[in-house]
Amino acid sequence: MPMSVFSGFLYFPNMHFDVSLGNPFLKRTVEGFLKIGAVAASKVAVDETYDCLKKGQFSKATLDDALRKMCREGAYWGTTAGVYVGMEYGMESIRGTRDWKNAMLGGAMTGALVSAASGHGRDKVIADAITLGAIATAAELINNLT
Amino acid sequence: MPMSVFSGFLYFPNMHFDVSLGNPFLKRTVEGFLKIGAVAASKVAVDETYDCLKKGQFSKATLDDALRKMCREGAYWGTTAGVYVGMEYGMESIRGTRDWKNAMLGGAMTGALVSAASGHGRDKVIADAITLGAIATAAELINNLT
Repeated sequence: MPMSVFSGFLYFPNMHFDVSLGNPFLKRTVEGFLKIGAVAASKVAVDETYDCLKKGQFSKATLDDALRKMCREGAYWGTTAGVYVGMEYGMESIRGTRDWKNAMLGGAMTGALVSAASGHGRDKVIADAITLGAIATAAELINNLT
Repeated sequence: MPMSVFSGFLYFPNMHFDVSLGNPFLKRTVEGFLKIGAVAASKVAVDETYDCLKKGQFSKATLDDALRKMCREGAYWGTTAGVYVGMEYGMESIRGTRDWKNAMLGGAMTGALVSAASGHGRDKVIADAITLGAIATAAELINNLT
């Protein structure tokens, strides 16, 4: 009996950026922007690929649209991450310790800043600050589970 | 000239749970559930307090509603975090290494599982898996910035 074998493997790109700008604050911010921007762009690429496979059609317009979305989401996530990393680093410098409170305060300030920059009203800015502070705290706690 | 001085300080509760269940997989999952559940409940508490302050009124119904929301959100965030932590730990055991790929795969599987359990359709489950995978990767990368 003939046998057919399906074989596959997952390929993970090696993400490594080395940014040397002399200033550790600037270095972290730029690294955060680049890494998280890349993650967001990859997310959109996967999303769009699944969409194409589902619809079974592919055109130049689809590709153009996908590339535009990748740039936009990459820049948005990257900027938010860059601001957050900078804020957290600033908190660490001010408070002199490294714990989840830096993440909470950094997240809250980032949420407020990004929301205000997007032109939202006061209530939405405060709600976004609370939400991002909570998400940052949760991420920090999960990453430090023993 | 009389002077009025405003003085205040921020009080941070000390978050420390020690769960000892013998099994490291179970320990992490339960710790993740408790910690992130507490974060979500605190987030709702802050949100509701701001709402009360804004409206300038407070009633027993408001408190009841807030407590119910705290339990619901706490349970939802806690469950998601517990599943994620368990998945990431499982990935670490299977792959034998500890890097951002565990976070990505764990996040994707958690997203799919939680979305499917919420009764969403196939497309939404896949979109949620992609989104949570990306968010988990981003959080892992941010926490490991040098």
